[in-house]
Amino acid sequence: MKPFWGIKDQRVKTLDCTIRDGGLVNDHYFSLEFVRAVYRANVAAGVDYMEIGYKNSDRLFPRDQNGPWKYCDESDLRAVVGDSPDPSMKLACMIDAAKSDWKTSVVPKSESPLSTIRVAFYEYQLDEAVEMIEDAHNKGYEVSANLMAVTIVPEKRIDEILERVCKTSTNAIVIVDSFGSLTPVQTEYLTKKYLSYAEPCGIEVGMHAHNNLQLAFANTFLAAQCGATRLDCSLGGLGRGAGNCPSEYLLSVLNPDNYKLRPLYDCLEREFVPLAQKIEWGPYREFALTAQYNVHPRAAIASRKSPETRDKYTLLYDKLLEERESK
Amino acid sequence: MKPFWGIKDQRVKTLDCTIRDGGLVNDHYFSLEFVRAVYRANVAAGVDYMEIGYKNSDRLFPRDQNGPWKYCDESDLRAVVGDSPDPSMKLACMIDAAKSDWKTSVVPKSESPLSTIRVAFYEYQLDEAVEMIEDAHNKGYEVSANLMAVTIVPEKRIDEILERVCKTSTNAIVIVDSFGSLTPVQTEYLTKKYLSYAEPCGIEVGMHAHNNLQLAFANTFLAAQCGATRLDCSLGGLGRGAGNCPSEYLLSVLNPDNYKLRPLYDCLEREFVPLAQKIEWGPYREFALTAQYNVHPRAAIASRKSPETRDKYTLLYDKLLEERESK
Repeated sequence: MKPFWGIKDQRVKTLDCTIRDGGLVNDHYFSLEFVRAVYRANVAAGVDYMEIGYKNSDRLFPRDQNGPWKYCDESDLRAVVGDSPDPSMKLACMIDAAKSDWKTSVVPKSESPLSTIRVAFYEYQLDEAVEMIEDAHNKGYEVSANLMAVTIVPEKRIDEILERVCKTSTNAIVIVDSFGSLTPVQTEYLTKKYLSYAEPCGIEVGMHAHNNLQLAFANTFLAAQCGATRLDCSLGGLGRGAGNCPSEYLLSVLNPDNYKLRPLYDCLEREFVPLAQKIEWGPYREFALTAQYNVHPRAAIASRKSPETRDKYTLLYDKLLEERESK
Repeated sequence: MKPFWGIKDQRVKTLDCTIRDGGLVNDHYFSLEFVRAVYRANVAAGVDYMEIGYKNSDRLFPRDQNGPWKYCDESDLRAVVGDSPDPSMKLACMIDAAKSDWKTSVVPKSESPLSTIRVAFYEYQLDEAVEMIEDAHNKGYEVSANLMAVTIVPEKRIDEILERVCKTSTNAIVIVDSFGSLTPVQTEYLTKKYLSYAEPCGIEVGMHAHNNLQLAFANTFLAAQCGATRLDCSLGGLGRGAGNCPSEYLLSVLNPDNYKLRPLYDCLEREFVPLAQKIEWGPYREFALTAQYNVHPRAAIASRKSPETRDKYTLLYDKLLEERESK
């Protein structure tokens, strides 16, 4: 066999979303020490971006019900990275359409350690998303446009959105498989579609996969094979429900001179093994079911919360079937 | 999005290897009731083949240290399937080169409920494998040739083996990723290579994936996309180490009129949830490490056996690195 069967493409960049997406499991109650440990591991491993949380609204998400990484106040960001953040890794935050007071919470780039703002939106929030993109761009940030739940957006509407977003100042547009239901062939199809709009405009395409069917790594790999260059991952796959593409898998198949695995495994053994005693994430079978029905994982999350419904797969199967048929 | 993004190819057949490969976790000590439950679930789900164990030698594997599915005596097979096995599903057994008294243990097909013999061999066992293939064929069986640990076989040798095996009476040849280290692009490359030898001879190509990097399902999917038509899977992914491609994933992306998922989830909740309290399998991080080093999972299995080394990823990482460098 040939020695290296991964992705050799120096344009490829990795984005760690451990704290941001993982925070959806524990309402962003990660300790400062934990976030610092992830930060240090990412820097040592050669990760290109770290998304440290949301800048979402404390009117909608009360401060006493969420940890600091739901808001990413500039002072909290400084507490993680200090006054001189490592220049080898860029810092990112996500803002959610309809959930973020982005006009005020996103400060000019010159006043923040952040480099990148990622704008998350559903298809019906396109207008606000375009405003958010331009606002962040005008404040000096690199911008990413993340259309969520793409597997339930009609293809015609995807085309419309791509056309419009590629006329904005965004630097990247990301395929977001919120329900973890993309198959490999569908991932390739979508990546090529996104690239067909983005490439002529000098915009990069990214991949944010969920692991409901244990396809997060494979779909991320395949998107990169097709030309996607912004690859989301998280340590141990930490993320909502089934989680994301594990960084410790992804980095092992990318340009081998750029990344180191040992710092990731070191952080996993120190920080994530204890964490898994406290919170649950990963490709439990309930998440395969919601992905197979191409629906939001909330029914699976609810099933796993109670010992009475956890691991009762046929109960969930029948419920999802009934919901589909009643539509 | 288009409605179905899976594999539409009526030639595709699924093979359940739950008991055979899963038996490598518990020395094939599955109860008759458990094996019957898997059999019934597979029949109800529409699985095409069920591999019920090995016909390996009781000289080499003492009867008092292994369960019945290590040997698959004809009487034990009959105990599972009765006198009139369901005609919709074929039964298979595996025989291992150098570990099976195949001349005597494989009886003429007319005397057995088995339809298919799968011959597993390492590259240096090719001569015996060819004899085993012809013996099983002459006894009336459909035959499959399974070259194990393909990721450590030099490409030139793979070509030699394919050339020779495709001159035998085998009906299929299977890509066996024993170490779970194939990447998606490597899977596609190998599938096309296998097909280039097999197709002109009327031989089918199969895929047997391991899940060390959570790529078992994706690699099986991709092999099928490339034209592989014999797809191995197991309930809950049960199998040695990280396990195999979960049947409950695979069947959801194959010809939708042919397969039913609910019987699989029903069996998983009744039989596999309790089983997971007794034995361990699945994509634990130690298995990602051995796959990343492209070595047999035995070091990972050993690490997970003792609480002192379990989840000590850097210890294993350093050990594997040292072993590689001392070569």
